[in-house]
Amino acid sequence: MALMTGKQYIESLKALKPKVYIFGELIDDPTSHPILRPSINSVAMTYDLAHDPEYEDVMTATSHLTGEKINRFCHIHHSTEDLVKKIKMQRLLGQKTSSCFQRCVGMDAFNAIYSTTYEIDKKYGTEYHERFKKYLLMAQKNDWTVDGAMTDPKGDRGLSPSQQEDPDLFVHIEEIRQDGIVVSGAKAHQTGSINSHEHLIMPTQAMKEADKDYAVSFAVPTNAEGVFMIYGRQSCDTRKLEKDVDIDLGNNTFGGQEALVIFDHVFVPNERVFMCQEYEYSGMLVERFAGYHRQSYACKTGVGDVLIGAAALAADYNGAAKASHIKDKIIEMQHLNETMWACSLACSYEGTKTESGAYLINLLLANVCKQNVTRFPYEIARLAQDLAGGIMVTMPSEADLRGAETGKWVKKYLAGKVGMDVENRMRVLRLIENLCLGTAAVGYLTESMHGAGSPQAQRIMIARQGNLEAKKEMARKIAHIDTSKDNVTK
Amino acid sequence: MALMTGKQYIESLKALKPKVYIFGELIDDPTSHPILRPSINSVAMTYDLAHDPEYEDVMTATSHLTGEKINRFCHIHHSTEDLVKKIKMQRLLGQKTSSCFQRCVGMDAFNAIYSTTYEIDKKYGTEYHERFKKYLLMAQKNDWTVDGAMTDPKGDRGLSPSQQEDPDLFVHIEEIRQDGIVVSGAKAHQTGSINSHEHLIMPTQAMKEADKDYAVSFAVPTNAEGVFMIYGRQSCDTRKLEKDVDIDLGNNTFGGQEALVIFDHVFVPNERVFMCQEYEYSGMLVERFAGYHRQSYACKTGVGDVLIGAAALAADYNGAAKASHIKDKIIEMQHLNETMWACSLACSYEGTKTESGAYLINLLLANVCKQNVTRFPYEIARLAQDLAGGIMVTMPSEADLRGAETGKWVKKYLAGKVGMDVENRMRVLRLIENLCLGTAAVGYLTESMHGAGSPQAQRIMIARQGNLEAKKEMARKIAHIDTSKDNVTK
Amino acid sequence: MALMTGKQYIESLKALKPKVYIFGELIDDPTSHPILRPSINSVAMTYDLAHDPEYEDVMTATSHLTGEKINRFCHIHHSTEDLVKKIKMQRLLGQKTSSCFQRCVGMDAFNAIYSTTYEIDKKYGTEYHERFKKYLLMAQKNDWTVDGAMTDPKGDRGLSPSQQEDPDLFVHIEEIRQDGIVVSGAKAHQTGSINSHEHLIMPTQAMKEADKDYAVSFAVPTNAEGVFMIYGRQSCDTRKLEKDVDIDLGNNTFGGQEALVIFDHVFVPNERVFMCQEYEYSGMLVERFAGYHRQSYACKTGVGDVLIGAAALAADYNGAAKASHIKDKIIEMQHLNETMWACSLACSYEGTKTESGAYLINLLLANVCKQNVTRFPYEIARLAQDLAGGIMVTMPSEADLRGAETGKWVKKYLAGKVGMDVENRMRVLRLIENLCLGTAAVGYLTESMHGAGSPQAQRIMIARQGNLEAKKEMARKIAHIDTSKDNVTK
Amino acid sequence: MALMTGKQYIESLKALKPKVYIFGELIDDPTSHPILRPSINSVAMTYDLAHDPEYEDVMTATSHLTGEKINRFCHIHHSTEDLVKKIKMQRLLGQKTSSCFQRCVGMDAFNAIYSTTYEIDKKYGTEYHERFKKYLLMAQKNDWTVDGAMTDPKGDRGLSPSQQEDPDLFVHIEEIRQDGIVVSGAKAHQTGSINSHEHLIMPTQAMKEADKDYAVSFAVPTNAEGVFMIYGRQSCDTRKLEKDVDIDLGNNTFGGQEALVIFDHVFVPNERVFMCQEYEYSGMLVERFAGYHRQSYACKTGVGDVLIGAAALAADYNGAAKASHIKDKIIEMQHLNETMWACSLACSYEGTKTESGAYLINLLLANVCKQNVTRFPYEIARLAQDLAGGIMVTMPSEADLRGAETGKWVKKYLAGKVGMDVENRMRVLRLIENLCLGTAAVGYLTESMHGAGSPQAQRIMIARQGNLEAKKEMARKIAHIDTSKDNVTK
Repeated sequence: MALMTGKQYIESLKALKPKVYIFGELIDDPTSHPILRPSINSVAMTYDLAHDPEYEDVMTATSHLTGEKINRFCHIHHSTEDLVKKIKMQRLLGQKTSSCFQRCVGMDAFNAIYSTTYEIDKKYGTEYHERFKKYLLMAQKNDWTVDGAMTDPKGDRGLSPSQQEDPDLFVHIEEIRQDGIVVSGAKAHQTGSINSHEHLIMPTQAMKEADKDYAVSFAVPTNAEGVFMIYGRQSCDTRKLEKDVDIDLGNNTFGGQEALVIFDHVFVPNERVFMCQEYEYSGMLVERFAGYHRQSYACKTGVGDVLIGAAALAADYNGAAKASHIKDKIIEMQHLNETMWACSLACSYEGTKTESGAYLINLLLANVCKQNVTRFPYEIARLAQDLAGGIMVTMPSEADLRGAETGKWVKKYLAGKVGMDVENRMRVLRLIENLCLGTAAVGYLTESMHGAGSPQAQRIMIARQGNLEAKKEMARKIAHIDTSKDNVTK
Repeated sequence: MALMTGKQYIESLKALKPKVYIFGELIDDPTSHPILRPSINSVAMTYDLAHDPEYEDVMTATSHLTGEKINRFCHIHHSTEDLVKKIKMQRLLGQKTSSCFQRCVGMDAFNAIYSTTYEIDKKYGTEYHERFKKYLLMAQKNDWTVDGAMTDPKGDRGLSPSQQEDPDLFVHIEEIRQDGIVVSGAKAHQTGSINSHEHLIMPTQAMKEADKDYAVSFAVPTNAEGVFMIYGRQSCDTRKLEKDVDIDLGNNTFGGQEALVIFDHVFVPNERVFMCQEYEYSGMLVERFAGYHRQSYACKTGVGDVLIGAAALAADYNGAAKASHIKDKIIEMQHLNETMWACSLACSYEGTKTESGAYLINLLLANVCKQNVTRFPYEIARLAQDLAGGIMVTMPSEADLRGAETGKWVKKYLAGKVGMDVENRMRVLRLIENLCLGTAAVGYLTESMHGAGSPQAQRIMIARQGNLEAKKEMARKIAHIDTSKDNVTK
Repeated sequence: MALMTGKQYIESLKALKPKVYIFGELIDDPTSHPILRPSINSVAMTYDLAHDPEYEDVMTATSHLTGEKINRFCHIHHSTEDLVKKIKMQRLLGQKTSSCFQRCVGMDAFNAIYSTTYEIDKKYGTEYHERFKKYLLMAQKNDWTVDGAMTDPKGDRGLSPSQQEDPDLFVHIEEIRQDGIVVSGAKAHQTGSINSHEHLIMPTQAMKEADKDYAVSFAVPTNAEGVFMIYGRQSCDTRKLEKDVDIDLGNNTFGGQEALVIFDHVFVPNERVFMCQEYEYSGMLVERFAGYHRQSYACKTGVGDVLIGAAALAADYNGAAKASHIKDKIIEMQHLNETMWACSLACSYEGTKTESGAYLINLLLANVCKQNVTRFPYEIARLAQDLAGGIMVTMPSEADLRGAETGKWVKKYLAGKVGMDVENRMRVLRLIENLCLGTAAVGYLTESMHGAGSPQAQRIMIARQGNLEAKKEMARKIAHIDTSKDNVTK
Repeated sequence: MALMTGKQYIESLKALKPKVYIFGELIDDPTSHPILRPSINSVAMTYDLAHDPEYEDVMTATSHLTGEKINRFCHIHHSTEDLVKKIKMQRLLGQKTSSCFQRCVGMDAFNAIYSTTYEIDKKYGTEYHERFKKYLLMAQKNDWTVDGAMTDPKGDRGLSPSQQEDPDLFVHIEEIRQDGIVVSGAKAHQTGSINSHEHLIMPTQAMKEADKDYAVSFAVPTNAEGVFMIYGRQSCDTRKLEKDVDIDLGNNTFGGQEALVIFDHVFVPNERVFMCQEYEYSGMLVERFAGYHRQSYACKTGVGDVLIGAAALAADYNGAAKASHIKDKIIEMQHLNETMWACSLACSYEGTKTESGAYLINLLLANVCKQNVTRFPYEIARLAQDLAGGIMVTMPSEADLRGAETGKWVKKYLAGKVGMDVENRMRVLRLIENLCLGTAAVGYLTESMHGAGSPQAQRIMIARQGNLEAKKEMARKIAHIDTSKDNVTK
């Protein structure tokens, strides 16, 4: 059953009975919780589109392990074409869900661990790569959604993992047994963790020897003993609990979700351990996962497409679509969105083969891509708010539209361009609100800033990958600089 | 009782029993409604600070009508010093409430109508100015909060008021009687309208003769027959209805509020009518009100002060305050905030006397000021989100912190810099969320865009006030351009 | 002799004896003129590098006409790989010359005319494509540099070609003879025209039937009867005439150049005519040439590499290289430069096959690419000036450094970091001056703005290619907008 | 003769016979040197306008020493009104000269030294203030232009003055005699130094005790024994030496100028020494001079006025003035220019009295002002280049326009809007070139970056003046943060 449907995915998730807290309470079933369900619907879309012949080419791939058709989210990229199809899939899903669809972290973790374990094994003669291939095979066969988990809570930013007062502030090995390891700690900001069948853990940064117990990678099912999650609340999340709510959600079907995932003395059998104290490789694993995941922010161009379309529709409903400044702002939104897209494409097409055979994106360009993502969605959202007009934040509620006494007044005074339907107008305005201030803004804005690493992390990588010395040498040649006259050490 | 306290204000408002709908339902008492109360607290602060000796100089003024001490919000500015104190009062209140405090619209309407009625009377021999002085006297004596109301729903932006299918899409005179006029229509985006004792209506744009029935200015008490309001819902507004909520509000005390104010065949006695068909003056009234109100966006620098402080605190709690990029981003936030402040100061200090004796701000600089306000708070908020970290949008709820099972985990894993209190850290992060995505974002961002006129409105004024011809002439002199050789008409 | 050397190129150009005016005087030999020679050296580099095994892959290609190795500048792109190699060649040449190397216009014209003539012939049964292939064969065999010329002087921007008072303001057909056509007019802003063996003319915009005589494409040798050029002067051009000048040039070897090319009753034989009144295809030809040429601005990333290197060197010489703000600004310069590069790559990799078999870049992304080029080099140059310090514009001259009385003072007071050579420091500062204010600024800045079309031209194309309707439809689906309720026509 | 005319100024300067080198050669008379003369004309304008009744109010002031009318450039500001008139004078002169008029440094030095010497004397019982008042009296009586000189060459940025290998890299006291001091060193980037009657020296940074010999302030006449200058070359400076040049200069009358001023064992009598080893006050003097001088960048708004006018004229001549994107870019240029102006006004109006009675600008706002000046002129210049079109850098020379053979072609093909004169069009384009790339770009761009301190210097001051702790406290109050729970030291 390599390709599940969305419905099958939801049932399979329900069956796992993950342990999840919301607002201090343990909940029964995430799949039926109104706050969580939209995020589960977004993931379900990654399954359903794989069955749509129109999208088969981008949504599915051929497993290099089995030769069978699999969901591309479970695939190891084996060409730059694969890397490009990955981002085309992500833009498509952004367009279809107008939200974070959460399944990328698993795909990016698969690919990063795949090539890194190969190189660990080569150096140490370990067998992580073979173990991981078996695990991957299961993921492909079961069409799992996997929470690729990297970011630890980190505690005091001025201290290394082993210097923290509380060792649990970074996930770490508590005990190495014959048959496996025991780990404790937590992963924060875990996108889509509540929706996942599995958690696939990676270390959060480059490590030194003192931190070797923190250099650990492993996988556990979401219902493993000692694993539980606490939902991270989002702007406007409880709007989803309101009675008869539809229009006011902006997007009544899809959403994103994040959680704190806690590992409380969790046992992991050896076949699910993919790094264990090989601290010299934690930097490589982080750099590759971060690189793949910075490429993944291509998804925001899909969400941007929806927001641009919504802003243009808002102008249509207002009767202002023909004003030259409106048209110019829409062009600017498109220009920024396509600039991000170009960066995603470039880092994919310029990908290269790793020793394992898997393809890695161009790291410099992937970081450049993500750096733009920390800026442009904010400007696109600002322009969308310009086009929407103040009514986006002063509009009466859906309940007022339906209200016996208020309804007629809302319809009368929210009329826009002659002949346009008021409810339609409200719908598009609420969609823009959702993306600029509401639940989807969490994904479109703040997570564009911090997901896959905060802006400064990308700047460090740009400095490291930018080859400044070569550029200096070019300048020296043009200017005929004779360095032999400079008797200082650089 | 020229200076009410905040408490007296709230009681006086409760006594008026305005007719207000929220979520399709008529409510009993706005002052005790959890969604509205924070916005009422913000207005109350404008009363309480007037009693604080530390702030007396900026918060109060001497009435030019009576020589008595009045709240500055009821004052007609009679010097550039007055104009500067106005904005210092606004920055102070932004700092104290971290929200829109809503009382500016009345003050700006007082000042715009005061000088415009003087000029109407001079031309037509009418007596609007005297009428308005009497009305103003009442406002000063009763220390009213007044909804200065300009923006009509406008319907189809491509059509003038009289071309709309529904005449009510702009407030207009339905009937002129011996003793007064009957009006219908609505005013949209009415900041603080639910909190106001009075509504003071102005036309929404320059008018031509065909639209003369739309050139109308008048005042009605908020509980006048035929007047009612529908609350405009805000991001995260229902979070205020959650049980035992405090931390999750970010700002548990203060807020802003907007509403649609509807006038359904409302009778206005002559002594409360300040413009009636003098359409040639609607442009002047709009330009002046807009000018004063664009100056008023000085308040956002006060809110910006809180946000900058909060972002710096978040870095402190994270243990990242010493990183050079963090310090640099805080400097940038301050630089942008002070640039807006400089513009507010400049348009105030460069104010000039109108024929009525009241002082008007410099219109060019007030528009430049507001244009920057449509940009910089967005960038400040983006930088604040950078400094806050992703935890701002992935953090468990307050209920999780209090939860019997979840509390210890939240405390454990949200630990930041050693020794810092987790609840404090959560509080500052929720404050930033409140300002960037929550209820206060409505005021700090979207209304910074559209309040007092959308960006394009300011650009039109900058073009009109910028004296491009004089600049061309300067260039001609420097370049020795001999226009006599150019035989075209321009 | 398919691959000339730089030296052979210069000799071949000298032999042609083009008719060139500088400062009102006819000059003898452009190749020995100090103002022109640097621009000829830049073109020569396009020949020399083709002989360097290290660069053979990007600098040469296999002719699809003959199967022989040719300079890539004469190649018709037959794959996306070709399109990518094109821009890698351009970045390389930017790095090697730190200037405009001018040969791209011919290559872009070849490719645009190649595919467009194919489509003209298909519609009209004409034989332009075969003619053009023969012409191209000569270009490849002779390894020509060709001035691909599009932009007419245009006169009054408010008038179409046929509405101009002077018909010559756009190149046009004056007479159609049995054996050829007679043309008059001029092409403005002709990059590298003085350096070219040939001029290859294209119409400047989409035309309507009234303008059909302006829909003309043809080639003439640079020394054809009736063809002559007037050099366009550049910032600091006469600095090249100064005695013993070297350091003060910043770049003493390479440069760019532009000229006005005039056609005064020039006869063109039929075999060199590639479009003659087929006005419906002028739009396609313009769009394709502009598209290829907007891709070509990849060259600026090569120049940017030199400028970034120079700015970093300047900080080294100042002893300020370790300051965190300096490092951060270098990162920003790299980020912007690589964002442009990513756009160039993306539009190349996303290229598609035309009916003729030649590959066309992705038009949307090529326009996005160029739009960024109208912005980012300015910001990179601004940051370079920040890093260079004020000394870049207040530094004494090279003559002062050499001067008997002044030399010791210049050496004493221009000392930077201990041990660094003052002459070296001056060299790098003059290189930055050259790129930010001097002759190279013409190419790096102003031509980044206007070359291949001014910013607004790209915005029009972004609007046209951006598929806004599809984006609106995405928004409608998410927001559940039922357009059947909107009874207006759009 | 308190108010000289421009002509008298030039004669007085000629009489001084300053020792000046250009291109390695000692020159006879700066006032007749074609490269220097435009900068002298700019200073002359500061004299001539003082005689124009229209500008008397801003150009002159009443000496607080004598009660006589003096040129405002020699005035000590004694009110915020004075501070505002200062910047209005500067904007005016920017408009009249379209260049740096160079006399501000003296005025700013007067004011900084005036108040600082007062405070030094108060602490040490010295008599610098009285000495300085006598010196100032002479300056006012003789209506001197004075080179207020602060910036030392600085050598290795990583070393303090006393750590430099060569002690002369900072101006310092070599010997203290009974009757005066002997100093050596140099001041770099000295705007208008060649045009000045006097040099008024200040230390370049805050000093510690080890650097006390570098804490020195004094004045010398420009022709003092041991003082000489080396001209700093500018973009396009030698264009001024071309035969019959006029149009190609863009601005054929006015310009700026900078030089390296060298002090080679110069004796300064005691009455001209204003600080001698009081190192604790060097920081105050620097901060105040920098503050006044950052305010002074108001001049760039005057130059900006000319550039905006020129860009608008260029659009007129092109026939493109009515395009909406053209109009919008002109609005943006005005908006940016007026934002800078607002900052200048604000820091002036918010000035405060020092202990000496002189008024100091608001330091925070003056630094905010200058920080914007390091950004906005670059964007205004970029937009001007957009509006000018590529023709700005590809246009034939003036000699071509005059040329017997070329003239008719230049006139024919540079025709723009019907009826517009081609020479006029060329003039305005050359003016834009002058400001964006030519001699005036040195002042309008690079010196906007570095003059009065480089951008980072302002950021440090913004951090220091921004009162971040107060902002944190505001945030704590709103968020109800209880710091007693934080048991860490900050």
